[in-house]
Amino acid sequence: MPITHKPFAGLNPRVTGFRCIRCGILLPVADYLEGCPACLDQNRPASLAVEYREFPASLDQLADWQVYSDHVTLGEGNTPLVSLEDLASETGIGSLHLKNEGANPTGSHKDRMSRFVVQRALEAGAPTVAAASSGNAGVSLAAYAAKAGLGCVVVTTSEMNPNWRRAIEMHGATLLATETPERRWQVLADRVRVGDWYPATNFSVPPVGSNPFGVDGYRSIAFEIFHELGTSACTDIIVPTSRADLLWGIARGYRDLQTAGLVEQPPRIHAVEPFGRISKVLAGQDYRGIFPGHSALTSIGGSTVTYQALDAIASCKGTAVVIEDEAAREDQKRLARCGFYLELSSAAALTGLRKLVAQGVITSDAAVVIVGTSNGFSEFQPFAHPIAMVG
Amino acid sequence: MPITHKPFAGLNPRVTGFRCIRCGILLPVADYLEGCPACLDQNRPASLAVEYREFPASLDQLADWQVYSDHVTLGEGNTPLVSLEDLASETGIGSLHLKNEGANPTGSHKDRMSRFVVQRALEAGAPTVAAASSGNAGVSLAAYAAKAGLGCVVVTTSEMNPNWRRAIEMHGATLLATETPERRWQVLADRVRVGDWYPATNFSVPPVGSNPFGVDGYRSIAFEIFHELGTSACTDIIVPTSRADLLWGIARGYRDLQTAGLVEQPPRIHAVEPFGRISKVLAGQDYRGIFPGHSALTSIGGSTVTYQALDAIASCKGTAVVIEDEAAREDQKRLARCGFYLELSSAAALTGLRKLVAQGVITSDAAVVIVGTSNGFSEFQPFAHPIAMVG
Ligand SMILES: [Zn+2]
Ligand SMILES: [Zn+2]
Repeated sequence: MPITHKPFAGLNPRVTGFRCIRCGILLPVADYLEGCPACLDQNRPASLAVEYREFPASLDQLADWQVYSDHVTLGEGNTPLVSLEDLASETGIGSLHLKNEGANPTGSHKDRMSRFVVQRALEAGAPTVAAASSGNAGVSLAAYAAKAGLGCVVVTTSEMNPNWRRAIEMHGATLLATETPERRWQVLADRVRVGDWYPATNFSVPPVGSNPFGVDGYRSIAFEIFHELGTSACTDIIVPTSRADLLWGIARGYRDLQTAGLVEQPPRIHAVEPFGRISKVLAGQDYRGIFPGHSALTSIGGSTVTYQALDAIASCKGTAVVIEDEAAREDQKRLARCGFYLELSSAAALTGLRKLVAQGVITSDAAVVIVGTSNGFSEFQPFAHPIAMVG
Repeated sequence: MPITHKPFAGLNPRVTGFRCIRCGILLPVADYLEGCPACLDQNRPASLAVEYREFPASLDQLADWQVYSDHVTLGEGNTPLVSLEDLASETGIGSLHLKNEGANPTGSHKDRMSRFVVQRALEAGAPTVAAASSGNAGVSLAAYAAKAGLGCVVVTTSEMNPNWRRAIEMHGATLLATETPERRWQVLADRVRVGDWYPATNFSVPPVGSNPFGVDGYRSIAFEIFHELGTSACTDIIVPTSRADLLWGIARGYRDLQTAGLVEQPPRIHAVEPFGRISKVLAGQDYRGIFPGHSALTSIGGSTVTYQALDAIASCKGTAVVIEDEAAREDQKRLARCGFYLELSSAAALTGLRKLVAQGVITSDAAVVIVGTSNGFSEFQPFAHPIAMVG
């Protein structure tokens, strides 16, 4: 059963409700914590998406395009889009840009989501927000909860790296660890269902996307890329992907621009994954299965697929590509040697580009944007050797 | 002797040379690695500043206001300016904003400087840039050098924290350690004087400001604050300060806005320091002395004062305030609990604000901006206790 809250003033007046991305049912604005109730009944979990009556004729007022016109902010968004000429030549494409989400206030794209989750919690009167996260989603939620004066709980595993842990604890959030990553979902589910915590992330198995108020926030990446590059300078976007909140948000942003008549042909949007999940489903497997795999790319790990990943790829004629950890490590160094120190999982976007070029999916005339989801400072690496002495 | 390079095309055509901020002499565009030669001869070290023929009538084209109209970029600048209502009430002032320089590409304000240092090195044909740094200046220079395809050497001490070290090494820069922080200057000086390295930081004792091409880049912070707040919403700016590159850049930016007729009365700009240096000079001591002190605020440590610190404070009618490490630690937590995880030295700006209010320097009608110089992710803290288990 969805929790239904009182209507509130901060919502964009263009919002008419939530529409299921699978069955198309339109539901009133509320918190549907496990996605579309109708699809869930059929054992076909699917996300709900914010439904808009209409879009403005221009992007001048971004507030008119988002679920909350007014919201808690730390100054997120408007991240740099920087040209990488050397890597464009190296990969044999027409042009390459990096959308550097690592320049968000807490260092990752998650800030675009957290602002709206926290805004929703505030207006719904929920005292505590919560996420199952071993990384940047937890840091981001903790920061926005702190700004809003809300409590925050991050359910993680005991291996969380010390840099993320310190940030979360400095923000005053409570960190709790479970024995296994999977166990995090159950802890979150139990406390959410009794009304203790308001969730940023989903906890169903099989999962749907994260909190739909939050996911709406990723559409702004499409708006910003379109605003800077138009359409001819962006034929393909490559996104490191796990549950595909970000992938779907960017795809939906472009679809909305198309609905508004601002874009004729959206770019293709491709998912990069560290082992076969989405790509297996695209090849015929059931999206509700378990797709086990191991990877050091923890921010895009996990063994499940969401319906929204398929929806995003289908709507933008994209694809999914599997890359190797070792190649991502090389590309993390390569990007750092172009000036961008990104998290390992972010570097996977460049690795994915190389593979899509090798496969002939992306061709020499392509104008590509890779999304750098998070900066590298959150990663911790101890050093065995001292720095070389001089002088 | 200054190294004189060939003239080059990237320079803003409004630039007429370098003017000494102390004696007023105007010199041609070149690299004056130890500040004004005339003042140095008198044993009164002082910085040179980029001299402009004129400024445009508006801020529409920021490129017209900066030493390089076109330059190497990672997407620095345009950092968020966020209102901190709770802290305004808590400190008893009219309004408070945080200028979050931690949202720059490498996580600190240094990116505004590195872009122009690297641009100058490129156009001067210098193959390798170098800095004496145990922190964010080194990371930033390494990143911009990587983007530009230049070599980079960072001379540090063996205690550099692992997060900064990893970033610098990922960018492909060479890290060298000296026994003491002071010894760094000598190593840098030796290699710069024989032409091996092009320096971002100064190495003279007593010091002048950093590379003047680079320091010019901090003026943009003033332009951005003015653009967003105008003048009535910004009466005071508070800057964590060591050698005062940043302090001076912001003060000069406002003076330039005044010269252009855009600002009538610039805000006062105050320096925060972890032990008495600038404040001792303002109280009568010679600026060329050694001012020993210990502090955990390493990014604003050091035992010297620059002439530019005095120039900035005098030109904007500001002051200097000394704060305690322990109070800065509390304010680092306080800011994190408002959503902003900043480096310890950055939190000193809030601590300085509290002290300036207590001293009556800043009053209840003030509209204050504190500059958050760097985010907290570069700090490393090991944890003795595991995360609490649940479920
Ligand atoms: Zn449905
Ligand atoms: Zn002079």
